[in-house]
Amino acid sequence: MNSRAGSSRIRGLFEQSSMEQDMSDVKKVVLAYSGGLDTSVIVRWLQDTYNCEVVTFTADIGQGEEVEPARAKAEAMGVKEIYIDDLREEFVRDFVFPMFRANTVYEGEYLLGTSIARPLIAKRLIEIANETGAEAISHGATGKGNDQVRFELGAYALKPGIQVIAPWREWDLGSRESLMQYCAERDIPVDFANAKKKSPYSMDANLLHISYEGDLLEDPWAEPEEDMWRWSVSPEDAPDEVTYMELTFEKGDVVAIDGEAMSPATVLETLNKVGGANGIGRDDIVENRYVGMKSRGCYETPGGTILLKAHRAIESITLDREVTHMKDELMPRYAKLVYNGYWWSPERKMLQAAIDESQDVVNGTVKLRLYKGNVIVAGRKSADSLFDESIATFEDDAGAYDQKDAEGFIKLNALRMRIAANKGRDLL
Amino acid sequence: MNSRAGSSRIRGLFEQSSMEQDMSDVKKVVLAYSGGLDTSVIVRWLQDTYNCEVVTFTADIGQGEEVEPARAKAEAMGVKEIYIDDLREEFVRDFVFPMFRANTVYEGEYLLGTSIARPLIAKRLIEIANETGAEAISHGATGKGNDQVRFELGAYALKPGIQVIAPWREWDLGSRESLMQYCAERDIPVDFANAKKKSPYSMDANLLHISYEGDLLEDPWAEPEEDMWRWSVSPEDAPDEVTYMELTFEKGDVVAIDGEAMSPATVLETLNKVGGANGIGRDDIVENRYVGMKSRGCYETPGGTILLKAHRAIESITLDREVTHMKDELMPRYAKLVYNGYWWSPERKMLQAAIDESQDVVNGTVKLRLYKGNVIVAGRKSADSLFDESIATFEDDAGAYDQKDAEGFIKLNALRMRIAANKGRDLL
Amino acid sequence: MNSRAGSSRIRGLFEQSSMEQDMSDVKKVVLAYSGGLDTSVIVRWLQDTYNCEVVTFTADIGQGEEVEPARAKAEAMGVKEIYIDDLREEFVRDFVFPMFRANTVYEGEYLLGTSIARPLIAKRLIEIANETGAEAISHGATGKGNDQVRFELGAYALKPGIQVIAPWREWDLGSRESLMQYCAERDIPVDFANAKKKSPYSMDANLLHISYEGDLLEDPWAEPEEDMWRWSVSPEDAPDEVTYMELTFEKGDVVAIDGEAMSPATVLETLNKVGGANGIGRDDIVENRYVGMKSRGCYETPGGTILLKAHRAIESITLDREVTHMKDELMPRYAKLVYNGYWWSPERKMLQAAIDESQDVVNGTVKLRLYKGNVIVAGRKSADSLFDESIATFEDDAGAYDQKDAEGFIKLNALRMRIAANKGRDLL
Amino acid sequence: MNSRAGSSRIRGLFEQSSMEQDMSDVKKVVLAYSGGLDTSVIVRWLQDTYNCEVVTFTADIGQGEEVEPARAKAEAMGVKEIYIDDLREEFVRDFVFPMFRANTVYEGEYLLGTSIARPLIAKRLIEIANETGAEAISHGATGKGNDQVRFELGAYALKPGIQVIAPWREWDLGSRESLMQYCAERDIPVDFANAKKKSPYSMDANLLHISYEGDLLEDPWAEPEEDMWRWSVSPEDAPDEVTYMELTFEKGDVVAIDGEAMSPATVLETLNKVGGANGIGRDDIVENRYVGMKSRGCYETPGGTILLKAHRAIESITLDREVTHMKDELMPRYAKLVYNGYWWSPERKMLQAAIDESQDVVNGTVKLRLYKGNVIVAGRKSADSLFDESIATFEDDAGAYDQKDAEGFIKLNALRMRIAANKGRDLL
Repeated sequence: MNSRAGSSRIRGLFEQSSMEQDMSDVKKVVLAYSGGLDTSVIVRWLQDTYNCEVVTFTADIGQGEEVEPARAKAEAMGVKEIYIDDLREEFVRDFVFPMFRANTVYEGEYLLGTSIARPLIAKRLIEIANETGAEAISHGATGKGNDQVRFELGAYALKPGIQVIAPWREWDLGSRESLMQYCAERDIPVDFANAKKKSPYSMDANLLHISYEGDLLEDPWAEPEEDMWRWSVSPEDAPDEVTYMELTFEKGDVVAIDGEAMSPATVLETLNKVGGANGIGRDDIVENRYVGMKSRGCYETPGGTILLKAHRAIESITLDREVTHMKDELMPRYAKLVYNGYWWSPERKMLQAAIDESQDVVNGTVKLRLYKGNVIVAGRKSADSLFDESIATFEDDAGAYDQKDAEGFIKLNALRMRIAANKGRDLL
Repeated sequence: MNSRAGSSRIRGLFEQSSMEQDMSDVKKVVLAYSGGLDTSVIVRWLQDTYNCEVVTFTADIGQGEEVEPARAKAEAMGVKEIYIDDLREEFVRDFVFPMFRANTVYEGEYLLGTSIARPLIAKRLIEIANETGAEAISHGATGKGNDQVRFELGAYALKPGIQVIAPWREWDLGSRESLMQYCAERDIPVDFANAKKKSPYSMDANLLHISYEGDLLEDPWAEPEEDMWRWSVSPEDAPDEVTYMELTFEKGDVVAIDGEAMSPATVLETLNKVGGANGIGRDDIVENRYVGMKSRGCYETPGGTILLKAHRAIESITLDREVTHMKDELMPRYAKLVYNGYWWSPERKMLQAAIDESQDVVNGTVKLRLYKGNVIVAGRKSADSLFDESIATFEDDAGAYDQKDAEGFIKLNALRMRIAANKGRDLL
Repeated sequence: MNSRAGSSRIRGLFEQSSMEQDMSDVKKVVLAYSGGLDTSVIVRWLQDTYNCEVVTFTADIGQGEEVEPARAKAEAMGVKEIYIDDLREEFVRDFVFPMFRANTVYEGEYLLGTSIARPLIAKRLIEIANETGAEAISHGATGKGNDQVRFELGAYALKPGIQVIAPWREWDLGSRESLMQYCAERDIPVDFANAKKKSPYSMDANLLHISYEGDLLEDPWAEPEEDMWRWSVSPEDAPDEVTYMELTFEKGDVVAIDGEAMSPATVLETLNKVGGANGIGRDDIVENRYVGMKSRGCYETPGGTILLKAHRAIESITLDREVTHMKDELMPRYAKLVYNGYWWSPERKMLQAAIDESQDVVNGTVKLRLYKGNVIVAGRKSADSLFDESIATFEDDAGAYDQKDAEGFIKLNALRMRIAANKGRDLL
Repeated sequence: MNSRAGSSRIRGLFEQSSMEQDMSDVKKVVLAYSGGLDTSVIVRWLQDTYNCEVVTFTADIGQGEEVEPARAKAEAMGVKEIYIDDLREEFVRDFVFPMFRANTVYEGEYLLGTSIARPLIAKRLIEIANETGAEAISHGATGKGNDQVRFELGAYALKPGIQVIAPWREWDLGSRESLMQYCAERDIPVDFANAKKKSPYSMDANLLHISYEGDLLEDPWAEPEEDMWRWSVSPEDAPDEVTYMELTFEKGDVVAIDGEAMSPATVLETLNKVGGANGIGRDDIVENRYVGMKSRGCYETPGGTILLKAHRAIESITLDREVTHMKDELMPRYAKLVYNGYWWSPERKMLQAAIDESQDVVNGTVKLRLYKGNVIVAGRKSADSLFDESIATFEDDAGAYDQKDAEGFIKLNALRMRIAANKGRDLL
């Protein structure tokens, strides 16, 4: 019977879940490998601790660093199966754009730049585990953050029997010093000149954003230093001239900028470049992590900031009122799902079906005015526009709208409250 | 019996609702009177058409024009009962601030500046009707807009037997020319020098905002002309220097600016002044009216724009995560209630009870950086802060958080999806 | 330009909307014609008042009365174009079943039997108007009820230029006596022997339910008389023996009863018969109408009551938890859309997309125990079941679930509240 | 600084959270003690394992068993501080009734009988820990169920530094046999004659319900045996005569039955008695546990089933439509909070504020007809009724409602869809 069969498969997995069994059972593990210090240590630590083969997976999702150097580093540590993928188009097309169709913002501020990349990484880790016959995956996310949750929920949802090794939750290398010492003892090559590593901040970057956490930011009263920011100039340093830009939408996604058709990743790269140059997209917030604590984060999301404003603008003339309102009410919970790591869940798919259903008519062009941190809508037009001058006009509408209808509309909408007031209900 | 008695009272009201009866029955009507052309015409039109006494009510809600001149104009037309009220403090304290506790934004953009003033006007109209024994109220809102709905829903909810006379839905003075001719024929004094009247735009102003509709704005592709805006300089013309400002919150409301305690109206006036000087708070949108059409509107809400950003920031360190999310999910429907005119409704009161319950802990100070249209949070602190550096830190936390807990947290959150995947459910 | 062209089309329609123009402009009108007294009067009244040709449309949607007799009656009044359709399968397949996928209940009680039939009628009225070149549709719903709204919203949404003639809102035939007199004066044949017409109740029936309103029911303290009910025996009169029944679901819809495959309409007919015989499906409620007043209604929905219980039961073993909860949260607004007449709206379609997305896995069989008004779930099974005995068991699960995971799960879920309590927040 | 101080308090707690420290640090633990086998074993196990003093807490929450015998048992095991409380009134007044104000049902079926008792137990455990100076609490819930979550979330929320000992997650006494052997070895008195203990089901009871899980119920296709049920007769065995009953509500709570004023607990006891005698309140469901698996449960909730139906009925005539709908939309998430153990959370309090705000007007009397499992509303009346016969009537309403208003109401509600259809949008 199906149910029985399924049960025994799950049981099998859980039987191996104690640490002792893990260590002996794991013969191959796929690691999300950046090529940096932390994940290089993890390669060696996995080899030593689990006595297993490590498969490295390095992805270009637009973080702005070369991924190819990761190959030599992995080879130097004896890794035989090395995956290096350019996932930029898939990232924007299948993750960023669907999310922006919902005008997604977490807690009123955060554009989910880190969150939305994790399900793609999780998916590739599982695909590679399937291709290489690995029993486990591993990642370099800490035990305090959201990313461990996003990686692992995705992995479990896509391959329920996968084992997950999260070194930061297991080892005792809790500080940079102990990591460095580990490297020294094991001959792990460390690139001391690497600019990023010298940053005092914990950073994450992909085509949608770059983020900063830790160090001075741990005091929410402290203002970030100007030299922390990497992708954008400050509004003060941005050009004194306005930049105009036109975005063309099809079914809710941008397909052209200033009339030039572009692939999804090129769209976002272009928006990032122009946005960053105009001081657009910085955010500095305290957010609520899924694991329970508040956390200060600074983000640069130049392209996403432009995209959100433009998408709302094109929706404003093409979307039905009630659909707009329903999207607005559903958005916070969609954002929460993405933030908490439930991209690969049936409830996210269910919401996405509703959102995508709404976007067929979201076509047209938005004209923007970019200036020193401001994204200003300067115009919107669409063959699918529902804006009707002949009805909305303050001038004579030649009978397009019968003002007398309003009386009945108001009277019946008021009826329940009139009856209540008549019965003595007092709303003051 | 209560029910019967109530019924007969309602019946009585409806019996008088046909026009013929109205005209003979209405002996006194309270008019929301601005002193401008339109409502001056309405005074005379009501006197002529209904052969009734007109009571004028003119309120200072911060629209930035003198209200006292309305007295002489009303007297000149024979009005005997003239109400002129300064409602600025009540407006901000009892309407604007409660709304901002919910971080209220309609359709992702509009801060509801016009909407939130209407229930206050409706309430005063009814109070004055009760004091003067008037059977009816009247207003100068058109039959195409939201304001008629907001005035009348409020009036009906507070006094179910009130009659409402909406001249714009009744008369045939559909253009400015016919209004002018009406004035000329009836010796209604028209102030041709009045600056506001020369504007090609339909405008509305109060302490929260000034709005523009009509004329060139009826083409959503057209960018507004710079000289339309009245309350703010453009970001380009704003000072080249940053302005810092600190807002102190108590129970979700601002009580002091830069350490100086202020009344609600003074808070908003101050924010408007500083915000406007820094090019903050312009918005240009296409919104969905309750009466069914899309409408282009431009708004200046300098103080409100600052207030919203600051309120979210102080909530970010003081509010529980799930309360934050629940507020975010409820906000769009709260906004819809305010926009549609249901301030005086039991459902708005019900939502307000939940929102206000959440604000006891929203205390503290937010430091802002204002610069050429940007409102940037530069710091937040609170004795009620839930931000805990010792847990959030990337450094060693001395055991404040057990990273091992995360494994169980993830495993159980993933369980339902693992079981499903194990049974063959595919999420890709 | 598209926008202009569209505008002028709308303007045209509204120009004709005053009564005088209607009367001269309408050359042909499609009437939803039951063959009963009221709509027979309407045929003649339309012919007389509008001097237009009437097309009658009579549908079998399972109301339990012959529709063919309507032909002779229409012919007798000179109607030349007569439509008589059997819409039972379409009704259940495309309206009832999609609605039950959402477990739809209005205000906790009402299964929307009347509401769900209206959009189908509206659609056919418009289709027939298109086929016959009619400018208008007409119906026999009163001006106080929901049905006028449902008919007309549907008609306007599907054909924006359609004119709607609602005689009950226009004429002065407000009582049965005046209708009878009208018939007598115009030689309209009245079937005085018709049992239904003698009922003191306003009734509506289709394959999903029969409803009763008015007369004694207008006192919400009065219990309905036993002889009012037509489709079901009372629980007291139902058999003393239990009836077992098995329903088989595919993608959320019932496709077989007791192993026998059936069409949608046959499924519902069968459930009605068995349910009614067992005293199942009576409801007696006070509901809130869209037009603003409360209304007492009694309903018999035998098949629907069984269907709802069974659908929830099959979902209970096949649906993901979070999908279940999201459906539960969305359901009330889906119900409200159907009740208020927004079936033919983009927001209903958007919600339906989400609901239907969830139903692919809702397959399997539910065993029911029917007894004197009770629908008791006696078993559920499915090849898509997510129920896993090996994990849920109270017995030894051989390691299928690691109870230690629960500690981390609880600790992290509690973290935000522990931090808050530690800061002095008091929840008591 | 406040923030630092708070942090150090939390840190202190977490420092003690490893098992080694627990065992030495815990000097006193408060145990939720039923007097039954499992918790008797836990008393001894805590004494042995932690070498600590055990305080027992036994509550009468209406489970239908004597609580006083627990005293002698506890004394026999050397317990010095013994708390035995009658919490029935507090349970119904402060937990059951507030929950029923929301018409709370989990997943369409479950009345949350077990869930709602846990926060009260958690609260008393913490109060007793404070009184006795205990560092820890303990309970007998397993690591697979929801109750551990409910106990512990409550405890952590009310006293963030409390330690929790959950023996079922720690020990290896996974079967009844090993428990019995443990008793035999340690001279723990076992009452072999205790009827409840002989049941093959895992049961839980309080004034709101009794539940059954496990054994035969682990197959969702299996129907429960008749002799499992303890509180109700089957519908078949219930009296052949109808029982009428009148419930009087004040602010949403029942205060009298058949005109006799009663305390909250007496109300529920009475409803349970009458309901159980009439075969009312059995439910048999598969529910989704918070810890991730589906679980079969059977419940008897006779009084709650009656209460829910009656509360909806009194709301149907006293509550505003939009308030009703908002409550319906919020209910599923309120139910989820209670089910998942978040009673003592700020988000539950926020929702409760909204719900309670709505209940001031929920006054009046509901007449019920109870018969063989059926709860039938036979009448509702209230001085706060909003039902208005004069408007709802199908008879001539003497002008109480102007049917012409409906046209404008429909036209404006349809406007957005007409414009869209006119622009070519197709909803079919």
